[in-house]
Amino acid sequence: MKMVLTILFILSLLSLSHASVVDFCVGDLTFPNGPAGYACKKPSKVTADDFAYSGLGIAGNTSNIIKAAVTPAFGAQFPGVNGLGISLARLDLASGGVIPLHTHPGASEALVVVQGTICAGFVASDNTVYLKTLKKGDVMVFPQGLLHFQINDGGSSALAFVSFSSANPGLQILDFALFKSDFPTDLIAATTFLDAAQIKKLKGVLGGSG
Amino acid sequence: MKMVLTILFILSLLSLSHASVVDFCVGDLTFPNGPAGYACKKPSKVTADDFAYSGLGIAGNTSNIIKAAVTPAFGAQFPGVNGLGISLARLDLASGGVIPLHTHPGASEALVVVQGTICAGFVASDNTVYLKTLKKGDVMVFPQGLLHFQINDGGSSALAFVSFSSANPGLQILDFALFKSDFPTDLIAATTFLDAAQIKKLKGVLGGSG
Amino acid sequence: MKMVLTILFILSLLSLSHASVVDFCVGDLTFPNGPAGYACKKPSKVTADDFAYSGLGIAGNTSNIIKAAVTPAFGAQFPGVNGLGISLARLDLASGGVIPLHTHPGASEALVVVQGTICAGFVASDNTVYLKTLKKGDVMVFPQGLLHFQINDGGSSALAFVSFSSANPGLQILDFALFKSDFPTDLIAATTFLDAAQIKKLKGVLGGSG
Amino acid sequence: MKMVLTILFILSLLSLSHASVVDFCVGDLTFPNGPAGYACKKPSKVTADDFAYSGLGIAGNTSNIIKAAVTPAFGAQFPGVNGLGISLARLDLASGGVIPLHTHPGASEALVVVQGTICAGFVASDNTVYLKTLKKGDVMVFPQGLLHFQINDGGSSALAFVSFSSANPGLQILDFALFKSDFPTDLIAATTFLDAAQIKKLKGVLGGSG
Amino acid sequence: MKMVLTILFILSLLSLSHASVVDFCVGDLTFPNGPAGYACKKPSKVTADDFAYSGLGIAGNTSNIIKAAVTPAFGAQFPGVNGLGISLARLDLASGGVIPLHTHPGASEALVVVQGTICAGFVASDNTVYLKTLKKGDVMVFPQGLLHFQINDGGSSALAFVSFSSANPGLQILDFALFKSDFPTDLIAATTFLDAAQIKKLKGVLGGSG
Amino acid sequence: MKMVLTILFILSLLSLSHASVVDFCVGDLTFPNGPAGYACKKPSKVTADDFAYSGLGIAGNTSNIIKAAVTPAFGAQFPGVNGLGISLARLDLASGGVIPLHTHPGASEALVVVQGTICAGFVASDNTVYLKTLKKGDVMVFPQGLLHFQINDGGSSALAFVSFSSANPGLQILDFALFKSDFPTDLIAATTFLDAAQIKKLKGVLGGSG
Repeated sequence: MKMVLTILFILSLLSLSHASVVDFCVGDLTFPNGPAGYACKKPSKVTADDFAYSGLGIAGNTSNIIKAAVTPAFGAQFPGVNGLGISLARLDLASGGVIPLHTHPGASEALVVVQGTICAGFVASDNTVYLKTLKKGDVMVFPQGLLHFQINDGGSSALAFVSFSSANPGLQILDFALFKSDFPTDLIAATTFLDAAQIKKLKGVLGGSG
Repeated sequence: MKMVLTILFILSLLSLSHASVVDFCVGDLTFPNGPAGYACKKPSKVTADDFAYSGLGIAGNTSNIIKAAVTPAFGAQFPGVNGLGISLARLDLASGGVIPLHTHPGASEALVVVQGTICAGFVASDNTVYLKTLKKGDVMVFPQGLLHFQINDGGSSALAFVSFSSANPGLQILDFALFKSDFPTDLIAATTFLDAAQIKKLKGVLGGSG
Repeated sequence: MKMVLTILFILSLLSLSHASVVDFCVGDLTFPNGPAGYACKKPSKVTADDFAYSGLGIAGNTSNIIKAAVTPAFGAQFPGVNGLGISLARLDLASGGVIPLHTHPGASEALVVVQGTICAGFVASDNTVYLKTLKKGDVMVFPQGLLHFQINDGGSSALAFVSFSSANPGLQILDFALFKSDFPTDLIAATTFLDAAQIKKLKGVLGGSG
Repeated sequence: MKMVLTILFILSLLSLSHASVVDFCVGDLTFPNGPAGYACKKPSKVTADDFAYSGLGIAGNTSNIIKAAVTPAFGAQFPGVNGLGISLARLDLASGGVIPLHTHPGASEALVVVQGTICAGFVASDNTVYLKTLKKGDVMVFPQGLLHFQINDGGSSALAFVSFSSANPGLQILDFALFKSDFPTDLIAATTFLDAAQIKKLKGVLGGSG
Repeated sequence: MKMVLTILFILSLLSLSHASVVDFCVGDLTFPNGPAGYACKKPSKVTADDFAYSGLGIAGNTSNIIKAAVTPAFGAQFPGVNGLGISLARLDLASGGVIPLHTHPGASEALVVVQGTICAGFVASDNTVYLKTLKKGDVMVFPQGLLHFQINDGGSSALAFVSFSSANPGLQILDFALFKSDFPTDLIAATTFLDAAQIKKLKGVLGGSG
Repeated sequence: MKMVLTILFILSLLSLSHASVVDFCVGDLTFPNGPAGYACKKPSKVTADDFAYSGLGIAGNTSNIIKAAVTPAFGAQFPGVNGLGISLARLDLASGGVIPLHTHPGASEALVVVQGTICAGFVASDNTVYLKTLKKGDVMVFPQGLLHFQINDGGSSALAFVSFSSANPGLQILDFALFKSDFPTDLIAATTFLDAAQIKKLKGVLGGSG
């Protein structure tokens, strides 16, 4: 009898749960986004699949000159992270592989080495260089917005997963910004002190114009 | 004369007020929301009524087994709080009434007792239990995301108003999460160490399946 | 036997709770504070009393010309709110009582009327005035930083509790800023267009110099 | 050959840049905005012109009684600042010009004097008045939400640029809030202690009703 | 010659880098912390070792009844994450291992399966249960503050790394909060509807009093 | 008489102002800082001088190869900005002067040209280059963390003031990070594809080792 009454009456508490269907905001990429991220998919259409992503389970193709691959699970690939202040990526580095110098303009990064050995480093605003050789299970953090890199100088392939303090950390690869863009050569030379010949050589490699 | 000139010329300052019609963002629930809350109602359609809410003036129905009722004024009920980082709720507890153990995933809570006596408590991450008996006029805070409860162990009914550090604090009632959901009994047993019989009994009461 | 094993071995999970004694940050006002609030009291010295405050249970003295009193429970009075993004205050208004025009520079406010009737209002950046007469149980919100007031134009005393979206909302009372300070009269006149006689009269009342 | 390979294979890194086209969120004012700002213009339609604004290059008209003009470059005028947490404005003050007492409800302000001399000040919550006379090149900050003013008491015109810690700082001019609005005279009198005659006089000047 | 001049004169730019040694804030646990985290270690004493942590490289001991172990790298264990808005942990689950139902009051979580198969799930505020079986390389996110669990129902051991959107995510294990604390049995019964016998049985196992 | 009473009784409101002396947090650099900034100077020792800074009134020395100078007014130079989410700097560029490619890891930037003509640009994560030629009075924004530069390609000197969306925006000058540090040449070569000869040449100029 007590239970029956409970069933009948505890329902009065029920309505207030409806107010709180804002635990998450799975991104709906078909609407315009805002400064805080993508618009939210209707909760009624959200399923468990929205919170999981299998794209990082596939090794990236490292049969290239940098012998490395980055596979992101940011808000654009994995809308479940939208609004949660976190995202992920997978780094595959064959022996000798390099993730070139880059920044994430909007997030700090945490890296965990899952296989192999990785030498990683970042440069602080006072130009101090912090370098570490990381083995399996080691973690390292890269503070927001600073230039950093990962390199596999070991004899076997390496695998790492990285996470970010934002659903959309951004990624600016130094070489791409300079040499894969239409950044005019004379402006690059003037603002980096690199020789024009060096700039043109790398633009040739990476496909930049200007 | 001076005044006339003022009228004429001070208008040059006027235009800049138009830029600042972003003092508030009354929620328009007909548009998709984003991670930061609901879209804003057009300022021209906003009236004083948008900033007030009378839903908390009505006593909740406590004629139930828990002898209690929660009436929320979150963003979904009271769109005027959207974007303001604050919201409210009303707690009615008849003698013996209980607001069962619950969390607000996205906000801290402040409670003020307006009538009667309330015993309230929360559990911290280190499993310390903080308990207080609060009388009329006393306030208590419950840090974000921690399990807490309110109980009226006095002889007369109690009334409290609570506020939250978010327009959408969320509300996860422990018993509902476990026993009013389709959380499979074997998974509940495995992840809470509760006996299956206990789980099934409460599922029977609260209407959970699985 | 199973239980004994559990006792013995589940302890391996225990250590990780120690990491999370950062659920709260009860303010320790003896250390220098920072931009985010007061330093945290050591968790080992925190008790349930730190999270409750009885100072709002005492009616403020309204035997004064404004026939009103404000009793704050901000971080300085109630260190338990430090870092939680919320705080409270009590408003007592005798019949005819007035909380003069003021702002909270760092927080939005939510008000709930507990007794009597209160006329409240705020002015937006576009100079629209939003006015509401609130009766017992009604709530109203005042967006961050905007000029607002509360007035009891009813025949009996009124009581309200307010909460803020910050542990330290600040409070700037317009009359005090102008007439209870050493703001030079000529500068007030120049920047408010008030007549010098009016300024001097109110400085006389409120004790301002300059 | 090495370069050719690089061209071919480094493309594997290319795809991940697509994830990060969230470096900025130029405001699209045709969509409803949200608590965090305007919706974002499609990145493909964004040009360099979106990030620059020439509206502050034109001197404001100071041929008025206050002998001053404010020209804002907030999110509404300069959508490129949307989501960046910063915005700007230009202050022109003829000799004797005054920017009347005002607040920015949602931002702190930094001012740099580019020409002439400016006396500026703000009032803190404890009614302390902080006054400074600033000459060319001097900077001053005004903490969020506090009443402040700028006045040119020098013999020649002055120019300053101000920036804000928000793309939409808001602007509440005290005199406009009181005397250019429909704030009822009796409520102003009750909540500011100003004489009704003073209020009516300034309403006459500024065009307020009520 | 040009280079010599550069050496001599470019130094004028040097000084400004000193201002920016606030790229990071490695935690100094000997000072009182604040709401935003630990005090910062002096930059001059910071080395690359502060940004790396090898504690997650060691498998947790799963020779226990839950057949699982959690190893945190939060701010308290890994001070390099302080202020960066991110932290990590390692989950070891033997076959049949379970990370019991828990919440992180202050952070969202992202999990990546590195070895084996993990069934994970969380319950939303509307009592919807989201369940996924994750294999090696799969990732899943758990929105802030919601009850969730991980279980290894496969035949071999599983390993996962998790990251959090806060340097100090907190961790509240449901069973510990209820049964490993001094939460009085009658209050638990009243606020969870669990039978007293069930509560006492689990308190016996986990060591709770009251 | 009324006034006397007011003096006597309005004092009851006075006490609450004490709670709100948290309008600002002028940095005290003698205490350890935290993730949110420097510790606050005692309000009783704060004067108007703390909120103003004259260091930007002095032209930087541009008699150097880059023909430019940057003078910061960040939290370290101008403690008044601490906690306010804003800071400033002055840019002097002689004819032909260049502020080399750099990032601010923790802030967006807004620039206003006060004298002369400046060509400025930034590179987005998708390698698009946004370039603008700005004349006196023009403003431009540079989104957080992205590589950008300023160059004076006009015939006369230029002056600009910049502001940032943080009291401590940080500053990472690309050339200094690479060539004025002890970043090993082989690691630079591996992570930037620059030729070793080019790296060594610039290290010679800028004084880098390794």
